[in-house]
Amino acid sequence: MAKREKQFVEEITPMEVDFPKWYTDVITKTDLVDYAPIKGFMVVKPYGYAIWENIQNFLDKRFKETGHKNCYFPLLIPESLLTKEAEHIEGFAPEVAWVTHGGNKKLEERLCIRPTSETIICTMYAKWLKSYRELPYLYNQWCSVVRWEKTTRPFLRTTEFLWQEGHTLHETAKEAQDETIQMLKIYKEMCEELLAMPVVDGQKSESEKFAGGERTYTIEALMHDGKALQSGTSHFLGQHFTKAFDITFADRDGNMSHPYHTSWGVTTRLIGGLIMTHGDNRGLVMPPRVAPTQVVIIPIASDKGNVTEKVDDIYKQLKDKGIRVEVDDRPNYSPGWKFNEWEMKGIPVRIEIGPKDIENNQAMVFRRDLLDKSPTSLDNISDYIIDLLDNIHNTMLERARTHRENHTYKVENMDQFKKVIDETPGFVKAMWCGYTDCEAKVKEETGATIRCIPFEQENIGKKCFCCSKEAKHMVYLAKAY
Amino acid sequence: MAKREKQFVEEITPMEVDFPKWYTDVITKTDLVDYAPIKGFMVVKPYGYAIWENIQNFLDKRFKETGHKNCYFPLLIPESLLTKEAEHIEGFAPEVAWVTHGGNKKLEERLCIRPTSETIICTMYAKWLKSYRELPYLYNQWCSVVRWEKTTRPFLRTTEFLWQEGHTLHETAKEAQDETIQMLKIYKEMCEELLAMPVVDGQKSESEKFAGGERTYTIEALMHDGKALQSGTSHFLGQHFTKAFDITFADRDGNMSHPYHTSWGVTTRLIGGLIMTHGDNRGLVMPPRVAPTQVVIIPIASDKGNVTEKVDDIYKQLKDKGIRVEVDDRPNYSPGWKFNEWEMKGIPVRIEIGPKDIENNQAMVFRRDLLDKSPTSLDNISDYIIDLLDNIHNTMLERARTHRENHTYKVENMDQFKKVIDETPGFVKAMWCGYTDCEAKVKEETGATIRCIPFEQENIGKKCFCCSKEAKHMVYLAKAY
Repeated sequence: MAKREKQFVEEITPMEVDFPKWYTDVITKTDLVDYAPIKGFMVVKPYGYAIWENIQNFLDKRFKETGHKNCYFPLLIPESLLTKEAEHIEGFAPEVAWVTHGGNKKLEERLCIRPTSETIICTMYAKWLKSYRELPYLYNQWCSVVRWEKTTRPFLRTTEFLWQEGHTLHETAKEAQDETIQMLKIYKEMCEELLAMPVVDGQKSESEKFAGGERTYTIEALMHDGKALQSGTSHFLGQHFTKAFDITFADRDGNMSHPYHTSWGVTTRLIGGLIMTHGDNRGLVMPPRVAPTQVVIIPIASDKGNVTEKVDDIYKQLKDKGIRVEVDDRPNYSPGWKFNEWEMKGIPVRIEIGPKDIENNQAMVFRRDLLDKSPTSLDNISDYIIDLLDNIHNTMLERARTHRENHTYKVENMDQFKKVIDETPGFVKAMWCGYTDCEAKVKEETGATIRCIPFEQENIGKKCFCCSKEAKHMVYLAKAY
Repeated sequence: MAKREKQFVEEITPMEVDFPKWYTDVITKTDLVDYAPIKGFMVVKPYGYAIWENIQNFLDKRFKETGHKNCYFPLLIPESLLTKEAEHIEGFAPEVAWVTHGGNKKLEERLCIRPTSETIICTMYAKWLKSYRELPYLYNQWCSVVRWEKTTRPFLRTTEFLWQEGHTLHETAKEAQDETIQMLKIYKEMCEELLAMPVVDGQKSESEKFAGGERTYTIEALMHDGKALQSGTSHFLGQHFTKAFDITFADRDGNMSHPYHTSWGVTTRLIGGLIMTHGDNRGLVMPPRVAPTQVVIIPIASDKGNVTEKVDDIYKQLKDKGIRVEVDDRPNYSPGWKFNEWEMKGIPVRIEIGPKDIENNQAMVFRRDLLDKSPTSLDNISDYIIDLLDNIHNTMLERARTHRENHTYKVENMDQFKKVIDETPGFVKAMWCGYTDCEAKVKEETGATIRCIPFEQENIGKKCFCCSKEAKHMVYLAKAY
């Protein structure tokens, strides 16, 4: 064991020593991602992309069950469209990439690569929509977007990233509001049921909301290092864009009305989130439901006895039950080397089986989350593994919840707040007056921000922790990615 | 019936009158696609995108079964990388879009939006590959690419289009060649088994091959108007790029070698292909296996008897068997109006059911391909429909094959060739000397091109149809999209 431990120490910087370095080591050494030759861009390698495909499959199914359809809008947006909604252009103009030449010709109007697609989509909706009978419009697209970021880190913040963006129109404000909340709930369900990553759901403050929107809802997760990760947002856009883009429809009374509008999205940053929620000093710990490989089988001394036949048999049993399973029968690597590799990659379950195990009608089953290995009967092993994967999911979710509870603090004033933020990073609950001044002061003095006004409000005081005036909301604060 | 026919005449230009206009009418009036506010760009609407999703699902499954994994490479490519392979830059430079500014800053080096990803992918492969043990690399990505085209038409040729691009590396030339052919075969299978669109498979001539490659293989389909559509290509790239990008690996003898390389892709132009293969003057005729909706049920006089219950019952039976079925119970549209709409959208099967049908334990079943309506017993209707969908697929494929055979001609000399190309557009088989001079002359004088040197060679003469010198290959020629 000593040798194996040493190898890990060499490979991955412990998170207690240097958390950002730990993160970078984990994502590159486990082949999730690599740096592209253009600053701020990443290559999502097959192992990382397979995680994204599993997130896509989960969400796409839920989107379709709730009546949404996919479509595809252009990558490029004329400058004149981007500038139609005043707050929107102010928010996005500083960070878009501009195309100025097509082929060898200078373009008459420059085009930006979409940083988000409200403007181009609203242009088309204005052309299409005629009557209330056609509403709601429930459309989504899977694509990449580009935002010219100054500081980047793979998955968490990159110049180009993969995402989905839903864009819906509704007859009434209530329907749009309901849609906004429905989609946030789907995101929360995905985080918890698929990624085993608990999130706090709530509303963003005015200064943190989407540029051009009316209200932004968010889900916020807490990472190992006590920093928050905004993991998905859903925007009630009201009529801001539908007025700016002159989207109208003949309503039930025969009058021309502007519809109500939502947009909502999640990105590949979720992959960063699951790494920083579950990973440890050996590397990744993959939540079983999103893991590209759920079980790896490693034959021991496969030249002896009927090891190969037994491995094939177990592989087939698991495969037939729909488990994503692989056999690592590479002859030129030792079992110990393989154990290391698969542990680093975070495969939830490892099955080791050799001639002695077969004599005892058993296999050794290792679960990555608890680093626990125990002998398991070969009778009904596939049912055992199915239950085990569920158990691992629940254990990981519960452990992450416990971590969050243990790193959630309550404060009454700025002194307490500064002490907590400096000494014990995590979520901080506090009462807030609702004014932007206090919010700006907190950010200025501590670097922390209001992550959200949670739906689940607790009355933990009467005064704003910053200005001591009458409090309006309980909020979650944290330093954030 | 007269009134219905009139409505069609008003809506869709007959293809015999103006084929391009027919195509444009069909794609816009059936809500597949719309023109974006930027010249040459399209919006793929939900109905069109759902077809693309079905193509993706078919191919992605086959790619994975043959050992390929998906990944994602950056959208933008630095100019210095694009220019590394001499023939490649010559082919693509005139048609790329250039990003010159990120945010408010001018970039030090301009970046192009990928027209295809060989250059960025080879840059990463050079960084990753070490040993023969890691080969083959079998990677694919689904994304959009941009090529600044002068003349565009939705699906067939647009500035931005959706596609997949496979990029593989192999130890030996033979393995790379086998991969190239394997992927072409998968494309052919997809065209015939999914889209009911027969294709001729073969090799491109030197002047028509991929810029920077060694050999290009292609599948070519014949459209209603006698023009060919290149429907998918697979390139054996040899060591052109692996040398230019200095991709090396330690081979079995311990020497450093350059791997062999392939790339292969199909695009959303396949949707244009299926429209122009199967469509008629009423609109789309969707091949059942790719149709987003395979069956529509239209209740007649649904307020009477137990029509609604019966419709629900049939819907459930079909749904349970995995058929993509919809019920059109919109109260504010007449059955006749609905028939028109669904016929125009090309839904393979329509089931009409009213009180009288129920009395007779039957429904009226309409098949779009043959415009044939007949009463069908309600007993085991779901099994009947499953068989019918297969029958429709086979009938459509056979009809398209017959159309192709009826529009494939043999010629011996240029006079015959010019007459055929002018008077009876279609595929023309001819013997060719293999020299670029003749190929250029044919293109210059007739606008037709060599579509491919088919794998299935026939000896139909000894002399080149253009120069009368000794013939080397039998080729397919046509005017093409």
